[in-house]
Amino acid sequence: MDSAALQTPALLLDTVALEHNLVTMAHRLPGMTLRPHMKATKCTSLARYQTEFGHHGFTCATIKECEGMVAAGLGGDLLLANEVLRTERIGKLLTAADAARVTVAIDSQATLDAAILGGVRDVVIDVNIGLPRCGCDPSEAARLADAARRGGLTVRGVMGYEGHLMMQLDAAKQQEQVEQSMALLIAAHCEVGGELVSAGGTGTHRVNRWATEIQAGSYAVMDSDYARRDDGFHQALFVEATVLAVNQKGWAVADAGLKAFGMDHGLPSLPGAQVLFCSDEHVTFRPGADWKLQPGDRIRLTPAHCDPTIAYHEAMWLSPAVALDAEAALELGASSPIDITDRWAVDLRGW
Amino acid sequence: MDSAALQTPALLLDTVALEHNLVTMAHRLPGMTLRPHMKATKCTSLARYQTEFGHHGFTCATIKECEGMVAAGLGGDLLLANEVLRTERIGKLLTAADAARVTVAIDSQATLDAAILGGVRDVVIDVNIGLPRCGCDPSEAARLADAARRGGLTVRGVMGYEGHLMMQLDAAKQQEQVEQSMALLIAAHCEVGGELVSAGGTGTHRVNRWATEIQAGSYAVMDSDYARRDDGFHQALFVEATVLAVNQKGWAVADAGLKAFGMDHGLPSLPGAQVLFCSDEHVTFRPGADWKLQPGDRIRLTPAHCDPTIAYHEAMWLSPAVALDAEAALELGASSPIDITDRWAVDLRGW
Repeated sequence: MDSAALQTPALLLDTVALEHNLVTMAHRLPGMTLRPHMKATKCTSLARYQTEFGHHGFTCATIKECEGMVAAGLGGDLLLANEVLRTERIGKLLTAADAARVTVAIDSQATLDAAILGGVRDVVIDVNIGLPRCGCDPSEAARLADAARRGGLTVRGVMGYEGHLMMQLDAAKQQEQVEQSMALLIAAHCEVGGELVSAGGTGTHRVNRWATEIQAGSYAVMDSDYARRDDGFHQALFVEATVLAVNQKGWAVADAGLKAFGMDHGLPSLPGAQVLFCSDEHVTFRPGADWKLQPGDRIRLTPAHCDPTIAYHEAMWLSPAVALDAEAALELGASSPIDITDRWAVDLRGW
Repeated sequence: MDSAALQTPALLLDTVALEHNLVTMAHRLPGMTLRPHMKATKCTSLARYQTEFGHHGFTCATIKECEGMVAAGLGGDLLLANEVLRTERIGKLLTAADAARVTVAIDSQATLDAAILGGVRDVVIDVNIGLPRCGCDPSEAARLADAARRGGLTVRGVMGYEGHLMMQLDAAKQQEQVEQSMALLIAAHCEVGGELVSAGGTGTHRVNRWATEIQAGSYAVMDSDYARRDDGFHQALFVEATVLAVNQKGWAVADAGLKAFGMDHGLPSLPGAQVLFCSDEHVTFRPGADWKLQPGDRIRLTPAHCDPTIAYHEAMWLSPAVALDAEAALELGASSPIDITDRWAVDLRGW
């Protein structure tokens, strides 16, 4: 299939960049030292591909992600790295699928009670290590672990998320801050026990030497925000759009807008052009000086934040030539048609 | 069904506020003087409800919206108020459904050629009236209309979108600026002819006296951004979330984040609380001073921008009591369970 046949906006995945990212990460964090996070990519086909690189445990943020992973036969060791107050669907999943193991984060008596009530078997104690979000105070971790064990649950260890340090670009500072955060988690782990110290993400995977496993997801596809870290990953995710109008006053418009891009990290980018703003179904941009764009031309934009971008799309379209074409596009504006080799459903959306 | 049974995050629609908004608008802009825009609400059930208030023509932003409206039997007079370069799906729609009429915006020779090629029968000339987006220069409108008529198309008139004036809160300035924009459109209309002068939106519907029909969508459900206009509409759209954690250090966390809210207009709001930030599946907020929130409690947040928020959700859940409960929630933090009376699919998502 030719990319020109795609209805735009369309999510494109460059398979060469994807493979590069998976190889790079598997070299740094082999096997179970990486627990790829499905919240970023929401795609069981991508998860299955990640198993080819040696990763067989996955992180989920929602019950729906757990259900989808189990249905795809990838539920052998899932960590629901999130608190849930209604866990019946997890219990059902464990009863229905013998091969499924779902470990759930708890951080309070209420989440512990919910886990027991719903039929959860395995938990980790979620410890707050600096990000103002979930996680118990480190001083409460041991008590909660004891209560969980008394309740008949297996406590597999601890987790923490130093999310506030992902975009600390000063390497020395990041090193120091991650060490401080992880000192809290390690201290809690000494009291809690278990084999897991689960933490981290794409932004801290190179400096977090204390976790037994890193919960990174974005590294696989990347976005313009994480690109600022310059961690050796390549941009694999793009949104293809059709140019609708080229105005003589100096702007052009294409058909990808607020429903095609997560906007919390700002505007998407288009190399060589200046993106001015997004409307519901449009992006308005100032084309490169030498570009000769015409209505009907295709352009490929880079999302600022991959997770909420992917969550808007039903599928991603694969090609080994997306990034290859980027250099020519920088000069011409318009992207060339490329061969689409596969379609992966974004099948883990919703809740 | 009780709202407590909903999987969160869940989109709630207050039917009392919705009815108030539809009554209010139908009084101001009866019948065909309003062409409700489906890009905001993406829901054929809501569109069908709007017909009960006298509106039988609708505006769409995507081909998918047109297809869904025709499939729902609501395609008698659709305006695709957007340029499209590939129109075969429109042509198929017209051939397949006798009762369907889809008028398509054109603003260039390329979009005219595409319309003819794809089997489009009716067009409007989209004129740029100040927003840097699509629309031809006013001076080109007559030439384009002539070319369309020579090509065998029916030119139903003109459209323009003064989107840059929606949030002009100074009433006198808005009046003056809308008049200037519309002067361009009216001048073009004098040369183009046809029965339609289609323009406007929720933000300008009270001052735009020149359009024969207003393309407003958000008024039906509203958001915290449009609420700043204080135009007499009530907030009907909320996202129900479950409190996951209440931290002694002064923050609480609930399970609605970047995949539950369009973020281009900023954070969602929670009356009585201060929303601090959103993560992929979480909102962190500072609860009201007297609130006694517990994990498991429900809260109801107001989106900052309805269109890209709705596009993340599969369905909206209806109740006449959502807004009624808001006053109690302001005091207590937690919302009470309410009776859910219906489920409307958000069936016009995607492209």
